[in-house]
Amino acid sequence: MDKYIRPTLAEFVGTALYVFVVCLFPPRVEASTILPAGVLQGCVYACLILGPGKISGGYFNPVITASVTLCGGVTVRVALCYFFAQILGGLTGAALSLAILPSDMYSLYLGGSTTLVNGTEPGWGLLAEGILTFILVLTVLMVTIDENKQQLSPLVTGLSIVVGVMAGASLTGGSMNPARSLGPAVCYSLHQDGSYVWNYHYIYWVGPAAGAMVATLVFRFLFASGSREQYRPSV
Amino acid sequence: MDKYIRPTLAEFVGTALYVFVVCLFPPRVEASTILPAGVLQGCVYACLILGPGKISGGYFNPVITASVTLCGGVTVRVALCYFFAQILGGLTGAALSLAILPSDMYSLYLGGSTTLVNGTEPGWGLLAEGILTFILVLTVLMVTIDENKQQLSPLVTGLSIVVGVMAGASLTGGSMNPARSLGPAVCYSLHQDGSYVWNYHYIYWVGPAAGAMVATLVFRFLFASGSREQYRPSV
Amino acid sequence: MDKYIRPTLAEFVGTALYVFVVCLFPPRVEASTILPAGVLQGCVYACLILGPGKISGGYFNPVITASVTLCGGVTVRVALCYFFAQILGGLTGAALSLAILPSDMYSLYLGGSTTLVNGTEPGWGLLAEGILTFILVLTVLMVTIDENKQQLSPLVTGLSIVVGVMAGASLTGGSMNPARSLGPAVCYSLHQDGSYVWNYHYIYWVGPAAGAMVATLVFRFLFASGSREQYRPSV
Amino acid sequence: MDKYIRPTLAEFVGTALYVFVVCLFPPRVEASTILPAGVLQGCVYACLILGPGKISGGYFNPVITASVTLCGGVTVRVALCYFFAQILGGLTGAALSLAILPSDMYSLYLGGSTTLVNGTEPGWGLLAEGILTFILVLTVLMVTIDENKQQLSPLVTGLSIVVGVMAGASLTGGSMNPARSLGPAVCYSLHQDGSYVWNYHYIYWVGPAAGAMVATLVFRFLFASGSREQYRPSV
Repeated sequence: MDKYIRPTLAEFVGTALYVFVVCLFPPRVEASTILPAGVLQGCVYACLILGPGKISGGYFNPVITASVTLCGGVTVRVALCYFFAQILGGLTGAALSLAILPSDMYSLYLGGSTTLVNGTEPGWGLLAEGILTFILVLTVLMVTIDENKQQLSPLVTGLSIVVGVMAGASLTGGSMNPARSLGPAVCYSLHQDGSYVWNYHYIYWVGPAAGAMVATLVFRFLFASGSREQYRPSV
Repeated sequence: MDKYIRPTLAEFVGTALYVFVVCLFPPRVEASTILPAGVLQGCVYACLILGPGKISGGYFNPVITASVTLCGGVTVRVALCYFFAQILGGLTGAALSLAILPSDMYSLYLGGSTTLVNGTEPGWGLLAEGILTFILVLTVLMVTIDENKQQLSPLVTGLSIVVGVMAGASLTGGSMNPARSLGPAVCYSLHQDGSYVWNYHYIYWVGPAAGAMVATLVFRFLFASGSREQYRPSV
Repeated sequence: MDKYIRPTLAEFVGTALYVFVVCLFPPRVEASTILPAGVLQGCVYACLILGPGKISGGYFNPVITASVTLCGGVTVRVALCYFFAQILGGLTGAALSLAILPSDMYSLYLGGSTTLVNGTEPGWGLLAEGILTFILVLTVLMVTIDENKQQLSPLVTGLSIVVGVMAGASLTGGSMNPARSLGPAVCYSLHQDGSYVWNYHYIYWVGPAAGAMVATLVFRFLFASGSREQYRPSV
Repeated sequence: MDKYIRPTLAEFVGTALYVFVVCLFPPRVEASTILPAGVLQGCVYACLILGPGKISGGYFNPVITASVTLCGGVTVRVALCYFFAQILGGLTGAALSLAILPSDMYSLYLGGSTTLVNGTEPGWGLLAEGILTFILVLTVLMVTIDENKQQLSPLVTGLSIVVGVMAGASLTGGSMNPARSLGPAVCYSLHQDGSYVWNYHYIYWVGPAAGAMVATLVFRFLFASGSREQYRPSV
């Protein structure tokens, strides 16, 4: 049980709380809400890494989990459990926010879903999500998987969430996390006939996945401190 | 004396200073003051944990104290002393802010008291306070009570205060702390005939208490690293 | 030389840089500049504690120096050198900001000087400066003088500067530091016939001094971990 | 290879990502965007120091590299490689932002380039860049090169970036980094016939270089803990 059930529950709880908080105060297009949203998401991420994340590793994000798995941080079986927990967590968190928020606020926030803003082209949005996820995943791998781990790692991971959310806010909404994008999109399109949140939804899967894969390659073949054997994936 | 009086005084001083600072700059409904209020409250909380909190543990919050007591962090007798110190501290801090603030500013801030805003339903407010307190208390338990304690714990506790204040600001005002809600409500209703700050005041007792209890259960039966016997409450 | 000259120069450099940065972006009455000013002052303070402060202890503030001296952290002779270095540093920093800032911006900022705002009564301003300095000095004593020192101390001291600046901004301007208030007042009154920056200037000496003295007493007789002999002042 | 190629690539990647993120959200003249820009740049800098910076030392700035080299932190040969990597990185990052940003946003941001604002005189701008770089470089030397290194060094370096960006925003744009100023200027002047971004461009080379040299002298002859021989440059 300690190997699968507790960590999987921890990922579920963590992702649900993360997405719930994100949906209560999503970044908007106006400059004045970009910083608050970034700080809020970074803070809650850091807290959750030290809360439930102590049991599971604290990923709350399918693409971080995938990268860590490819570097041998968790086994493939555990990663599969985490994946479903994260998707389900994202849906639960978004549903909670739909329940709690007054209806007009929920509509104004588009339920916390991520869409292309300010006339960003899909291709550039894809690239933005990719590069920002690259920064996030490279940071996570260097501070948690690398031989010389960092005590500051939960704070630093929080800081890279701040970076991604703020830098991406006026282009793609700054997701870097398919679970965080899927949940709110599902809930919002159920609540209102808001089909346009699904336009370009693939950006929030393809961009982060590509960025994370490049970060994994860069980590394993260029920046990792230890020998290459250390970071092999295991089943 | 070292066992009861000094820690109890430390909790009193800490809670009074916390509530005093909160009342000087409470979160308002407009988005522009949510981040400053969150940052201010998180910063002062972290400072107080490392100041007077070094003597008492640094709770300044009846529901955190209750959860820590149920996990064996402090004895029941000490916790009772803390409870009265915190309530009295909240009243003292709020009274100080009433003394210092210019009258029109004090009225504008509602004396720092917490009320339902933006047409939030009582039930949803209850849920919001509950979930945000859950995040706070789970974080505190994991970084201070758990076997593998964290050096970063004062900072991280501060971050979870930032999260709660910011995420709750546009619903319930983000209290998560009965002592922080009671003091300003008492002072404000004495100063002005502001009986409506008492409407739904129970939310700020029931919500945090429920959230803290769930967090305690989740910690003890799911996320704690050590054996269950370690976290037994003692008299 | 290592005992007096280098530390004294370090205090001079640190205080000059601190006051210079403060004067480039002082807190204004509008809520929107309170947070930036608080964050900026806290960040620069933390940097300077780890920069020049490594040599001198990193006080940059006469009342913190006095409290640390009374608890045996530095000798009385060194403290006297620091005092003059800090006053001179404050003047130098303010003069630099006068040199660099465009004239209209300098006037708009009142040269970074601190005055009572929003119709605050002198008595309440005195109390506000006193309580906020109490928080600052108590934090500094607990994280740097107390037996169980804290690795996080530079960050935490920075956080308590954030607290003081933000909480005091709409009352007294949040100084907590006579050297930081004197320098800008001298430069501004030389530059413009701005005699009114001297009204109530005593608040920024009496308030912080009183708050620091109370914090020293509370520390030595209530909160210090070690025996009382440990914290005796020395010549 | 480990001695030159990997660290040089790390500096290239780090500088490119830093400048890319800076150009997505540069500080503007209005007070409301100064704090977000400062926080964003500080956060991304701290992340990159712990990411690619683990391999290279994490400078991403020619003048920091020069100062560290003069204090023996890296050899002259490595520093030369870093220099070209940083210049190329700055160009790459700025080109990426030109590719990604919608055209009107790119023009509004002046492509992230730094110019004198609010009628600042060139001489004062030079002094401002110099003093702010002095704070940055002194902090970096004290927390990374000095005998008593600091675990918090990545965070603290991030904080001094926050200080420089925020304090300099309304004068010079707060660069402190020739590589960060060159890249955006090149890309912007290619994109639009924006020759005026080159007016006073020398400020962003001369100011930081002078500030860093003074900081190096102050460190080596005044503030360094160890003996002078320890901090000799090597080829």
